[in-house]
Amino acid sequence: MSGNWGRNLRLSIFGESHGAGIGMVIDGLPAGLPVDEGQIATEMARRAPGKDPAATARKEADKVRLLSGVYNGKTTGTPICGLIENTNTRGEDYGNIQTLARPGHADYTGFVRYGGFNDIRGGGHFSGRLTAPLVFAGALARAFLAREGVEAAAHILSIEDVRERPFRAEDLTGNKLKKLREMSFPVLEEREEAMRQRIRQAKEEQDSVGGVIECAAVGCPAGWGSPFFDSVESRAASLLFSVPAVKGVEFGAGFEIAAMRGSAANDALCLEKGQVRTKTNRNGGINGGITNGMPIIVRAAVKPTPSIARPQQTIDYRALEPAEIQVQGRHDPCIVLRAVPVIEAALLLALTECALEIKK
Amino acid sequence: MSGNWGRNLRLSIFGESHGAGIGMVIDGLPAGLPVDEGQIATEMARRAPGKDPAATARKEADKVRLLSGVYNGKTTGTPICGLIENTNTRGEDYGNIQTLARPGHADYTGFVRYGGFNDIRGGGHFSGRLTAPLVFAGALARAFLAREGVEAAAHILSIEDVRERPFRAEDLTGNKLKKLREMSFPVLEEREEAMRQRIRQAKEEQDSVGGVIECAAVGCPAGWGSPFFDSVESRAASLLFSVPAVKGVEFGAGFEIAAMRGSAANDALCLEKGQVRTKTNRNGGINGGITNGMPIIVRAAVKPTPSIARPQQTIDYRALEPAEIQVQGRHDPCIVLRAVPVIEAALLLALTECALEIKK
Amino acid sequence: MSGNWGRNLRLSIFGESHGAGIGMVIDGLPAGLPVDEGQIATEMARRAPGKDPAATARKEADKVRLLSGVYNGKTTGTPICGLIENTNTRGEDYGNIQTLARPGHADYTGFVRYGGFNDIRGGGHFSGRLTAPLVFAGALARAFLAREGVEAAAHILSIEDVRERPFRAEDLTGNKLKKLREMSFPVLEEREEAMRQRIRQAKEEQDSVGGVIECAAVGCPAGWGSPFFDSVESRAASLLFSVPAVKGVEFGAGFEIAAMRGSAANDALCLEKGQVRTKTNRNGGINGGITNGMPIIVRAAVKPTPSIARPQQTIDYRALEPAEIQVQGRHDPCIVLRAVPVIEAALLLALTECALEIKK
Amino acid sequence: MSGNWGRNLRLSIFGESHGAGIGMVIDGLPAGLPVDEGQIATEMARRAPGKDPAATARKEADKVRLLSGVYNGKTTGTPICGLIENTNTRGEDYGNIQTLARPGHADYTGFVRYGGFNDIRGGGHFSGRLTAPLVFAGALARAFLAREGVEAAAHILSIEDVRERPFRAEDLTGNKLKKLREMSFPVLEEREEAMRQRIRQAKEEQDSVGGVIECAAVGCPAGWGSPFFDSVESRAASLLFSVPAVKGVEFGAGFEIAAMRGSAANDALCLEKGQVRTKTNRNGGINGGITNGMPIIVRAAVKPTPSIARPQQTIDYRALEPAEIQVQGRHDPCIVLRAVPVIEAALLLALTECALEIKK
Repeated sequence: MSGNWGRNLRLSIFGESHGAGIGMVIDGLPAGLPVDEGQIATEMARRAPGKDPAATARKEADKVRLLSGVYNGKTTGTPICGLIENTNTRGEDYGNIQTLARPGHADYTGFVRYGGFNDIRGGGHFSGRLTAPLVFAGALARAFLAREGVEAAAHILSIEDVRERPFRAEDLTGNKLKKLREMSFPVLEEREEAMRQRIRQAKEEQDSVGGVIECAAVGCPAGWGSPFFDSVESRAASLLFSVPAVKGVEFGAGFEIAAMRGSAANDALCLEKGQVRTKTNRNGGINGGITNGMPIIVRAAVKPTPSIARPQQTIDYRALEPAEIQVQGRHDPCIVLRAVPVIEAALLLALTECALEIKK
Repeated sequence: MSGNWGRNLRLSIFGESHGAGIGMVIDGLPAGLPVDEGQIATEMARRAPGKDPAATARKEADKVRLLSGVYNGKTTGTPICGLIENTNTRGEDYGNIQTLARPGHADYTGFVRYGGFNDIRGGGHFSGRLTAPLVFAGALARAFLAREGVEAAAHILSIEDVRERPFRAEDLTGNKLKKLREMSFPVLEEREEAMRQRIRQAKEEQDSVGGVIECAAVGCPAGWGSPFFDSVESRAASLLFSVPAVKGVEFGAGFEIAAMRGSAANDALCLEKGQVRTKTNRNGGINGGITNGMPIIVRAAVKPTPSIARPQQTIDYRALEPAEIQVQGRHDPCIVLRAVPVIEAALLLALTECALEIKK
Repeated sequence: MSGNWGRNLRLSIFGESHGAGIGMVIDGLPAGLPVDEGQIATEMARRAPGKDPAATARKEADKVRLLSGVYNGKTTGTPICGLIENTNTRGEDYGNIQTLARPGHADYTGFVRYGGFNDIRGGGHFSGRLTAPLVFAGALARAFLAREGVEAAAHILSIEDVRERPFRAEDLTGNKLKKLREMSFPVLEEREEAMRQRIRQAKEEQDSVGGVIECAAVGCPAGWGSPFFDSVESRAASLLFSVPAVKGVEFGAGFEIAAMRGSAANDALCLEKGQVRTKTNRNGGINGGITNGMPIIVRAAVKPTPSIARPQQTIDYRALEPAEIQVQGRHDPCIVLRAVPVIEAALLLALTECALEIKK
Repeated sequence: MSGNWGRNLRLSIFGESHGAGIGMVIDGLPAGLPVDEGQIATEMARRAPGKDPAATARKEADKVRLLSGVYNGKTTGTPICGLIENTNTRGEDYGNIQTLARPGHADYTGFVRYGGFNDIRGGGHFSGRLTAPLVFAGALARAFLAREGVEAAAHILSIEDVRERPFRAEDLTGNKLKKLREMSFPVLEEREEAMRQRIRQAKEEQDSVGGVIECAAVGCPAGWGSPFFDSVESRAASLLFSVPAVKGVEFGAGFEIAAMRGSAANDALCLEKGQVRTKTNRNGGINGGITNGMPIIVRAAVKPTPSIARPQQTIDYRALEPAEIQVQGRHDPCIVLRAVPVIEAALLLALTECALEIKK
């Protein structure tokens, strides 16, 4: 009871971290869309662990096997199933903590929710590994939106207290975003080293750090999305908050807009070469839940990895007794870098849902 | 294309600001739930305009007429339709701006989305008035959740730059929340006058202000919600971002958690009188998308009212020509106070959706 | 828990027979569709009681009040709510049978399903009166499909054992169907008097009769619908079986196809003036769940009105005691004639759902 | 665009006949349900080809690989993915007919629907092979319903013109149904040889035959299902009409009820040992869309296999030219026997959807 999203684009996620495999069934994409397995692999590699010194040592191939819905390199129009078989799993690392709730994790809540029947190896269905199918689906959404002229990419706005400048709507272009997502550590300013420093330091101290990811999409025409329940914000936020570790989502000026006057928050409309534009972009490219043609801007707060090596107070949730836990296993001191393509995928999927709705 | 939400609890919203009426069909509530029309009226009054010097002068009865699904004061188990007939509408006030896009509003995006066929009088379907049916639905959700022992209320955390303290998980009780929602200006500290001062000042300067609303729910047992797409956060956020003017949503420590270390962000679990608790509540009562038994805490950023009396630059969206606009009519300089019960309703409805899912 | 249907076209029904009103919220129709209130009234009149000597004496206006989603005679693109206020209800007629289950009705099952909380006056939410909102929605679907060149109408194929010839795919035209739905008693052959005779006879004998309605749609292009769960048949059947009293649905040759050889059941394809056609139409215009360009043919079996004046054996479902019942009140001895526009509406709505899916 | 069904129980189907694999993701089943892989294999074997002289020679293992949602032999409560890898496919058999529409198949409609991008090898997504995942899902539904005391099974009511007696509600028991589904050729009377004779004869004449399958479920309590769109009939029919080859569905007396008088069609209620029963079962165990505690009875008309060896008139749908086709490959002269567990699965899944709705 967790696995379905969307009306025009329909996603069904499945899998557990240490089970046979994880994957996604995607229904609703039009027939004839080119599917480039190389591009899918590239996206998967961006999220995959072990690719970067800042990330976990566990190396997963994360190879997506296309089981259906693709024929001769194009979508058939019928449901697409992408399967990622699990390999290199070491369930035994987790053996000794099976009844101790790891703080910040879903061990206790999952136990209650599923009456103790859920697969807890490696976090099971709650594992961050489940974001891999989301990235796979996002790769298809990216291919779909590319035909509509949409480009989207994200940068690391902050790691712990190291923060760089946010996107500026006035100089955002598809090319700049494209370059951003080719970067191994996507930042706008030269803050990579300072950010990496925070990650190394946390690791040394058996701790972890979080950060904020800012994502932009350019090229969306005005008129995507709907008022109320199907607003671009509602759709994007519902996917973004699906991502384990995301605890905040904001569009445009976000929480800062609450401290502005209306005269500053309102984006004045104007015409540039016959195109409708706004002079500022406090509303993040969305008015009344509908795109206005300006860049879509969204930020997601990613909490620090809950798995840390230092001892923590907790309970044994079966015995209902207090306990101390030291989380074993291989863990990223920071998942923000790996979350970048996940956040992009969430926005791409939400925009695809909107685009498929409007193309009637 | 905007009007449906939920799977276990199903909402269908309809109406335009200056049409015949607005309302909601609510399906999925169990039979036999007491429906107190007085309590519905009380909730509606909290959102209604004209109740407070800080709000608009337009007085709407916002009386909900129960057309179906309620019999002998109890739900029948079949769909409930609540209709709010529109009265006291003065469509003519808006006549002179019908092709000028009001900055910060959905005039231009609605025009593109619906090809110019949407009812633009008073904002039509995009009007903040459409939050009234949400409050009605929220009143039913509140009655349902009361039987489960859940109480929820919100306070005004900030108006412009005037900010009070946030909720403290450790001293939140159902009784305190109940008192909060009986306050005409719900605040935890004595900041009402300072906040009202900001609103008055903005009004005098033909401007408007926004703010942040913080909402809490206590009494939810552990185990509501689902991982991934059906997380408590995803469901609540999709409703909260349906509310016009909301541009940011965060749970627990929210964006601040991104600057924390894991050792601080992780809520250590403990036992209090045999109950599982967490020592801190950085995760806002939710782990892995599922409630953990601690208070649910969510904050929503509400932008300043876009309708301001001072002249603004814009375009005529039919003629595609630059223009200046001075928004006429009666407008709140601040909608934050009236949005309080709306934010509560969004959280109550999301929790009801989760509760109905789990009660199987 | 009964009231939602559709993905592209979304219907929300509400109301009880003797409550304040009944209605439907329709979401997903495109903006700019002409809404002719006269045509809606015409469709409603076809279903309304009291229009024909063969029908009940209760005269209901069944006037649809358009509460939202229509502006200047066109759809706005936002949800459309049509409300039919209940008038001329005489709840007292039903008073004496409130704990006796009327055989063939949902009295007992509704009592169990809703724990005794459902509104039982006049059948409540189970009343055939709830088909009125379906006819209203069907009128909008008809307007939408007319723009696509689709025409649909039904005839009374049989009343009790009086049966006329079925549609012949080879001579079906939009004009013939149009004439059919202008007939007060739609039949292809001169069987009206024989059919009416059966109805009169049943009435005299304090009994009732049923019949079969056959509905056709012409003008659907090839390519509407989807394989498997979203087949044209699945969608149409789910709506048709929503109609109280329908106990069988078949497409094309239907049950007779089960006795055919493949060589007879397969519709040979051919070209007529460059158009793809089939020589026969055993599959009722649908292959693999998708329209093939031939007329869609569907038949629905309508059971005899369960309300009959003669004494029947039953139980008191509260006391759980055997009892005898004589159903009082005004009842049609045959609802087949009034069901004709309802069956048309179901097919029209299913086809609209398919058309909206494919127009991407 | 075909692959999603259900609200409480959510099914996502995927796959093509000659692609990598076919399967189903099932979400919404409770945690802790025992999953017996042997029982799943037994159900799969009932549908599998090559098991019976009356069926095709193609031998498929149809082994279901459980990728997720099952742990230690029990459901985890998270989505269950069952994958059936395709083996022993011989795509080349179909090579020479790739632009000729096989009459009675979806070749032409699929081509139009998906713009020529669909995988046509072996019928692709339209293949009857896609019913295998439905049987897998049905096996899980059967396990769920067994805990509720429900047993369901079907028999072959007719093959071509050979017909046996229908179920009699008065002597249906769970044990009898259990025995029925253990039969290799499930019939109530000794009509197996006569039916097989029809199949052999059709095969000799390079033709095929269809038939009617009747399915019953006993043990459902009163009160499952909902009025209108979520009626038991609507849910079951939408699944049954998903099954390729089904062209008619009827409940209880079905089409025959249309020729009855109300006094015969109404099922008189009575009490037997304190249990509410009906003396007859014309309504097939369902009133107002809700189960009444009597056996659920449904019949499905299965058309003769469209693939026949004799020459047929058709068109080349790319060249739009008339043509003659002789369908090559291995084909059943009758799929009715193999369809029996598919029809059972459809009913079981619909009842599970209803049961999950009501258990709130």
